[in-house]
Amino acid sequence: MTDILAPFARPDGRAIDQLRPISFETGIAPHALGSVLVSFEKTRVICAASIDERVPGWMRAQKVEGGWMTAEYSMLPYSTLDRKQRDISRGKADGRTIEIQRLIGRSLRAVFDLKKLTGKTLWIDCDVLQADGGTRTASITGAYVAAQIAIQKLIADGKLAENPFTDSVAAVSVGVFKDTPVLDLNYVEDKDATVDANLVMTGSGKYVEVQSSGEEATFTRDEMNTLLDLGAKGIAEINLLQEAAIAEGLKL
Amino acid sequence: MTDILAPFARPDGRAIDQLRPISFETGIAPHALGSVLVSFEKTRVICAASIDERVPGWMRAQKVEGGWMTAEYSMLPYSTLDRKQRDISRGKADGRTIEIQRLIGRSLRAVFDLKKLTGKTLWIDCDVLQADGGTRTASITGAYVAAQIAIQKLIADGKLAENPFTDSVAAVSVGVFKDTPVLDLNYVEDKDATVDANLVMTGSGKYVEVQSSGEEATFTRDEMNTLLDLGAKGIAEINLLQEAAIAEGLKL
Amino acid sequence: MTDILAPFARPDGRAIDQLRPISFETGIAPHALGSVLVSFEKTRVICAASIDERVPGWMRAQKVEGGWMTAEYSMLPYSTLDRKQRDISRGKADGRTIEIQRLIGRSLRAVFDLKKLTGKTLWIDCDVLQADGGTRTASITGAYVAAQIAIQKLIADGKLAENPFTDSVAAVSVGVFKDTPVLDLNYVEDKDATVDANLVMTGSGKYVEVQSSGEEATFTRDEMNTLLDLGAKGIAEINLLQEAAIAEGLKL
Amino acid sequence: MTDILAPFARPDGRAIDQLRPISFETGIAPHALGSVLVSFEKTRVICAASIDERVPGWMRAQKVEGGWMTAEYSMLPYSTLDRKQRDISRGKADGRTIEIQRLIGRSLRAVFDLKKLTGKTLWIDCDVLQADGGTRTASITGAYVAAQIAIQKLIADGKLAENPFTDSVAAVSVGVFKDTPVLDLNYVEDKDATVDANLVMTGSGKYVEVQSSGEEATFTRDEMNTLLDLGAKGIAEINLLQEAAIAEGLKL
Amino acid sequence: MTDILAPFARPDGRAIDQLRPISFETGIAPHALGSVLVSFEKTRVICAASIDERVPGWMRAQKVEGGWMTAEYSMLPYSTLDRKQRDISRGKADGRTIEIQRLIGRSLRAVFDLKKLTGKTLWIDCDVLQADGGTRTASITGAYVAAQIAIQKLIADGKLAENPFTDSVAAVSVGVFKDTPVLDLNYVEDKDATVDANLVMTGSGKYVEVQSSGEEATFTRDEMNTLLDLGAKGIAEINLLQEAAIAEGLKL
Amino acid sequence: MTDILAPFARPDGRAIDQLRPISFETGIAPHALGSVLVSFEKTRVICAASIDERVPGWMRAQKVEGGWMTAEYSMLPYSTLDRKQRDISRGKADGRTIEIQRLIGRSLRAVFDLKKLTGKTLWIDCDVLQADGGTRTASITGAYVAAQIAIQKLIADGKLAENPFTDSVAAVSVGVFKDTPVLDLNYVEDKDATVDANLVMTGSGKYVEVQSSGEEATFTRDEMNTLLDLGAKGIAEINLLQEAAIAEGLKL
Repeated sequence: MTDILAPFARPDGRAIDQLRPISFETGIAPHALGSVLVSFEKTRVICAASIDERVPGWMRAQKVEGGWMTAEYSMLPYSTLDRKQRDISRGKADGRTIEIQRLIGRSLRAVFDLKKLTGKTLWIDCDVLQADGGTRTASITGAYVAAQIAIQKLIADGKLAENPFTDSVAAVSVGVFKDTPVLDLNYVEDKDATVDANLVMTGSGKYVEVQSSGEEATFTRDEMNTLLDLGAKGIAEINLLQEAAIAEGLKL
Repeated sequence: MTDILAPFARPDGRAIDQLRPISFETGIAPHALGSVLVSFEKTRVICAASIDERVPGWMRAQKVEGGWMTAEYSMLPYSTLDRKQRDISRGKADGRTIEIQRLIGRSLRAVFDLKKLTGKTLWIDCDVLQADGGTRTASITGAYVAAQIAIQKLIADGKLAENPFTDSVAAVSVGVFKDTPVLDLNYVEDKDATVDANLVMTGSGKYVEVQSSGEEATFTRDEMNTLLDLGAKGIAEINLLQEAAIAEGLKL
Repeated sequence: MTDILAPFARPDGRAIDQLRPISFETGIAPHALGSVLVSFEKTRVICAASIDERVPGWMRAQKVEGGWMTAEYSMLPYSTLDRKQRDISRGKADGRTIEIQRLIGRSLRAVFDLKKLTGKTLWIDCDVLQADGGTRTASITGAYVAAQIAIQKLIADGKLAENPFTDSVAAVSVGVFKDTPVLDLNYVEDKDATVDANLVMTGSGKYVEVQSSGEEATFTRDEMNTLLDLGAKGIAEINLLQEAAIAEGLKL
Repeated sequence: MTDILAPFARPDGRAIDQLRPISFETGIAPHALGSVLVSFEKTRVICAASIDERVPGWMRAQKVEGGWMTAEYSMLPYSTLDRKQRDISRGKADGRTIEIQRLIGRSLRAVFDLKKLTGKTLWIDCDVLQADGGTRTASITGAYVAAQIAIQKLIADGKLAENPFTDSVAAVSVGVFKDTPVLDLNYVEDKDATVDANLVMTGSGKYVEVQSSGEEATFTRDEMNTLLDLGAKGIAEINLLQEAAIAEGLKL
Repeated sequence: MTDILAPFARPDGRAIDQLRPISFETGIAPHALGSVLVSFEKTRVICAASIDERVPGWMRAQKVEGGWMTAEYSMLPYSTLDRKQRDISRGKADGRTIEIQRLIGRSLRAVFDLKKLTGKTLWIDCDVLQADGGTRTASITGAYVAAQIAIQKLIADGKLAENPFTDSVAAVSVGVFKDTPVLDLNYVEDKDATVDANLVMTGSGKYVEVQSSGEEATFTRDEMNTLLDLGAKGIAEINLLQEAAIAEGLKL
Repeated sequence: MTDILAPFARPDGRAIDQLRPISFETGIAPHALGSVLVSFEKTRVICAASIDERVPGWMRAQKVEGGWMTAEYSMLPYSTLDRKQRDISRGKADGRTIEIQRLIGRSLRAVFDLKKLTGKTLWIDCDVLQADGGTRTASITGAYVAAQIAIQKLIADGKLAENPFTDSVAAVSVGVFKDTPVLDLNYVEDKDATVDANLVMTGSGKYVEVQSSGEEATFTRDEMNTLLDLGAKGIAEINLLQEAAIAEGLKL
């Protein structure tokens, strides 16, 4: 691995610890209680939070108290350069989709007290409008914004007593590209990275998920530590942008 | 049926022959060759046209010449006030979805010479972002814009010799609401309409599809004629807006 | 379009406004409460009406009053010259099948007061034994006969207080074949028609559904009007045959 | 078990070794090459034989010589007193259906030299129009008639050199009802039978399949022998009826 | 058919009426209440009996008294020399699998009084670890051992008042291989057998199921009788081994 | 978090850095080229490696060189205390199953040079016979043993020129149980753990995958580091056991 302070040209000219331009357009889907179009430059995901005034059948059957939160993820067919076939046309969700939507759900539940959402289900939907690397981390980042807006609207409408969120949550990818650890990989970097990690962290700096994988390769403890450092820096910056977006979204 | 010239208050104050505000935001999905977010006020649909440099297996097997065009339609889960379950979660596309995507495909093929699209498939995707009545007619209207942009880009890139479109195509709904025939029903009107018709017409004023249906009701030849008149007026106005959107989209 | 009064040779020698020989064989499926084998010459469809003494789960859950009526349509594998694969072998109903069974259901519900079928579901099944054009219109025509017989038997058996049918319903196809509008197209005409319309009308001459479609072509308002005239003539003749068949079926 | 020669009243008054009235109406589905509506009194099954001028993909892939024959079976929804849900609505064929269609296919292949059907697939379809016990044996019996007619027509049309059938085949049910072995059980007998056997035999008196099953009960070797005797008698009578039906069908 | 007493060399040197070495390893799956790995030499099947303290939904809905027993069968992908694709990968159970699991369920229910299993479901699972002919008969033989162990443990634990088994049950294959009837065919024999029969019999010597099938061939009454004799001899020997295995299993 | 050197009682009395008793029974499924029953005490998984002398269709279509390796995972219905429904009965693989089999496949491919497996597919099957925590890490550990045996047999048989494995691979779980980081959690520990991590590492001490997840909780960098230390110790011990098992398996 090269010295991470050495000059190194990323394909889009960013510094190795520099995020892509990130923006949030709240209210993109007005029929959802909370919604946002999150952009990590060319990676753009519609995230929406909807409330269902029931809990799933299994919770009613087992008389589990509190509420439920679940997430669904999909790539719109035109989000990729080669059109991606819809799940329903193939007859089943693909393995990658299932992994990602389980990750989104776990990430939000880690900072959410389901007991306080009594009798309700919070649905999180993430649909990728344009894919350019990091769609799962953008989805988690946007999902938190949409969900927090929805929750605060519920409280404002007198439909929820207390905010179930115990912390904020955001996610970013890190990886080893051309022997150099870098923050927030875009598609060009991602497809040639030898190590690819997704970090999900809270606003208070704790981990929710660490998923590092050698892509037909392996990695050392040192590389792991450098990636964790880069990720923590990125998450802290994203946190601030999320806060501003939530404030903006609540004005609508 | 009341006199159609009599004063009549539509829920949103429109005249009986007045369209909702219609707008087109081209380039919404940059990875597609042509794309547009079409809005009939609160009904908003992402329409994208993608090119696949192959024809379907059955065309290759049967050695059919030319190309193919097909459409897919879906309502995003957060497009409706009550969240709509995804097709893949229910395990199959619902009957309404299948009907609509077949209608979109037929409508575009009626003004398209497949023989001129040699060896290619043109995929049309319509995903409803917000549903407030008339999603199928908005989809056809936007699909033509996205497809025309894609085709003209193919020609500009030297990948297609000649434009397969033989005419333009647009669609609008008409119906009988509170005994009065009206143009371009929104959701509030649609759910109480006793007759509901979808008209698909070409820029030269010919019909592609006429689908009129009594909603647990029946209708007379006179009502049918009035609805056809209203629709023709609406389609003519939509044509002009489509042309402008295509010109705008080709500048991107 | 040629003068519709001019001499014109249809493939089977019929006049342009002449129906094929139509017949009804009631009681074809004795285990159904009402059943008929309807023949539009070589197009033959088994139509059966069965009563289920329950309403669908969603009606019970939402405490909707009254009853339900629904239709299913299929082409038997040997109904076509090239054997048609069963839906179950392909794993799903095809789009055309779904469109047709939705049309049959809507057509009957338009002349049926579901509130009077308290607590029951009326199942309509249409299975095509031989296909030679117009299977959907023959299905609607036969379905009404089977359903009316079933309803009258329910009343005779003291299981229903009042007849929910508010009118009769029948259907016929019309189309433009070799530039000439013709009534009741058979397969040879249908596959070369440039316009294809299906009309569903009541015994009192009102429309239930009008579905006209240019087959990779378009059509004018004048053509539309001529087709509606032809269809009305055909439906009136079919009404009389339906009445006789119902009377015959009730004697069994 | 009672003495089988003792007087014993079957529900429909038949002798214990007496078949139900059996009839064949050939040509029921004219688009199939061979077809017959076979009736064992109130059990009525449409059997059709269609030719596909290809062999299945696996035969082409493995370069297996000869042709193929396969069978499909279904109960039409209105064939039973309580409407039977379609396989496609339930999303899968039920176990009983799969067992029966495999049995029909094996039974016909046992008397058929696939090598002589070079390059063709013979499809056998059996759809039950009315079910009153013994639908699988009626299906095999009718399937042979439809298939033999189709084969002889192929030969007459010069499309096949030699008849692949090496023998005829027929089937009948036998069982123990009220402690008495009886031939050709109808529904009333079948549902109370303690032993139920289906025999498939050739015209020359050999067995193709013997399937005897105690219905939540067991049976002795003696009972087995009596059932085999009854079945052989029934099959011999059915053979003659099949021959006449084939001759009749070939005149059409 | 050759004289069955004449010297005849089976591929593995067995006498024509000799079983393969049979063994039972109980407790193979400790989380099941009863389990056994049954081996007919190289055919090895894991059989497990699990108790569910509920009856199926249809029994509750129809208020049927007693309990239920059902069986599932699968071949593990590595049980065959060429890896066998999993059912879930193909999207559906194959016809053979469905036939076999229905046979296993019927066989056990024939010697089991469901009324005595009040409110419980007994699940029988048979997974083939190694396939060398006769997996269905080995499954039935092992399933009885696993189920009997589970039932006796339930009784010992005071959870069941009375043993619902009314007899023991076992199964064996017989067939005609090189014109000679033989007992317990292994794979090499099975694939070349012209007649293949599966016998399921009780400990008291009665039949539960007799399924004889000519494999693209037919057979005579004499052959049938010889096969039944061979099978009865085999079943009697298997009964003794089952008894010993159950006793062994109850010691665990 | 408590001092990890302090006395701490694990439910089964192990030290916090102590593995469960691990054993390997090779040759459990003789029809597979390599197979092993791996036991982490009461967690037992059948792992089998089968060779298919073809590559997947997409590799042939895209003319990708080399071979392929893929994994499938399932829990046998009787592997859990409450019987687990089969995937095929539910109609689809559950999300957890899909995640795990993707993880197994990636883990083995990270130490495997697909280019050297020219024209072949290596299938890895992992079926859980008994589940007591850590089934995915046991599966990876056993899968490597089965695959290595299969590969070496291929080489010995002259069917492969060179060993594609570039390193060994093993996996173990670590987690935080009652505020204490522990190695190799069993089921009792796993269900109450607040942090759960799965480590996949090579014989040379590099990481293949690190997946740490707070179970509705979060964790610190210090906890992460402690868990990585514990895991590395466990993997080193497992490596030795794997080597011995492979040597043993190659003697069969």
